[in-house]
Amino acid sequence: MLKTAKRFFCLEGIDGSGKSTQLDLLKSALEERGFSCLKIREPGGVEISERIRGLLLDPAFKGRMSDKAELLLYNAARAQLIHEVIEPALAEGKVVLADRFSWSTYAYQGFGRSLGAEEVQHLTEITCGGCLPELTLVMDIDVARGRARMEKRGGEPDRLEQEKADFFERVRQGYLEASRKYPEAVVAIDADRTPEDIQREVLQLVLSRLT
Amino acid sequence: MLKTAKRFFCLEGIDGSGKSTQLDLLKSALEERGFSCLKIREPGGVEISERIRGLLLDPAFKGRMSDKAELLLYNAARAQLIHEVIEPALAEGKVVLADRFSWSTYAYQGFGRSLGAEEVQHLTEITCGGCLPELTLVMDIDVARGRARMEKRGGEPDRLEQEKADFFERVRQGYLEASRKYPEAVVAIDADRTPEDIQREVLQLVLSRLT
Repeated sequence: MLKTAKRFFCLEGIDGSGKSTQLDLLKSALEERGFSCLKIREPGGVEISERIRGLLLDPAFKGRMSDKAELLLYNAARAQLIHEVIEPALAEGKVVLADRFSWSTYAYQGFGRSLGAEEVQHLTEITCGGCLPELTLVMDIDVARGRARMEKRGGEPDRLEQEKADFFERVRQGYLEASRKYPEAVVAIDADRTPEDIQREVLQLVLSRLT
Repeated sequence: MLKTAKRFFCLEGIDGSGKSTQLDLLKSALEERGFSCLKIREPGGVEISERIRGLLLDPAFKGRMSDKAELLLYNAARAQLIHEVIEPALAEGKVVLADRFSWSTYAYQGFGRSLGAEEVQHLTEITCGGCLPELTLVMDIDVARGRARMEKRGGEPDRLEQEKADFFERVRQGYLEASRKYPEAVVAIDADRTPEDIQREVLQLVLSRLT
């Protein structure tokens, strides 16, 4: 049984799944209904977390940092974001909306990089304590469809985007595994529909927790 | 049951317990007997770990860093030291001698700072995998006696040394708890004796694992 925090929501999915668009639509819809919302995306402008991310992305350490150290550093940055931003916002009664959170670590590191989903999840529980989203919605989409959307969007693909399709297939399966294992906290929804159709479902699921 | 690594030893104890002196004596005695030894002390000169320690000690973050983030950063630095130094040395057949390791985190953070010994230990197991010392010897000494020794040694007391006696009493009890809970891996020895008497016992206990 996961310990989760009320009014904390997260959208997850591979790049091209439309999650960031959906998060903006969700925020507007909730604000129209009178909810005060805070949108976050790691490292969230928190100085300590930014410094930790600086270490993680330092080209001098590329290929030298151990997988375990990397995983622990991501968790340290997240612990600080919880401490400085998420917990205070929830305490003020705000709705917190996260563009990715711990299920990204679960899917990308645990499944994509095969670091061991159970260990990754265990570390998440230590890091986050009771501060996990009460509901995470995974924008589920076929990997080839997601990539086609990304390419249409253009721009330079980042390192993760360059990974092979089988990596993203493992990531997708990681998200789906989370939704099977923690059905109360993680729900996968079909993201291969119009933004309007997806938005209706996202909003309905979130509102069902807020009322 | 702890997973530990053969030929990996550690000396622990509060400051003034004599552990660093004993570690040097142990290293000399083992080298006289033909063992190739590597002495380590975190962060161990490993660049990534030094950078992480730099964050931990940055005065700008004093009082702002969450306990959890701090604990995770210490573990990240340790994971990198294991990866770059300890595992390669053990693979070469060296005896690794550590001046403090994970039981310091257990005693100081878990008991001294009351972060929860079980969670701290769980994190250690994730961080270290099977790379925990096969034998840790705790130089056990009355807190007042240890402090008196430190004062005799002189010099500016650091932040930890300034903590109150009850903090160090909790740390001492943490070490003793580890020795009760993991008797195969952690042994407390009476450090209120002459260095020669202590050294005889330390050497005997270590040699019993090496032969």
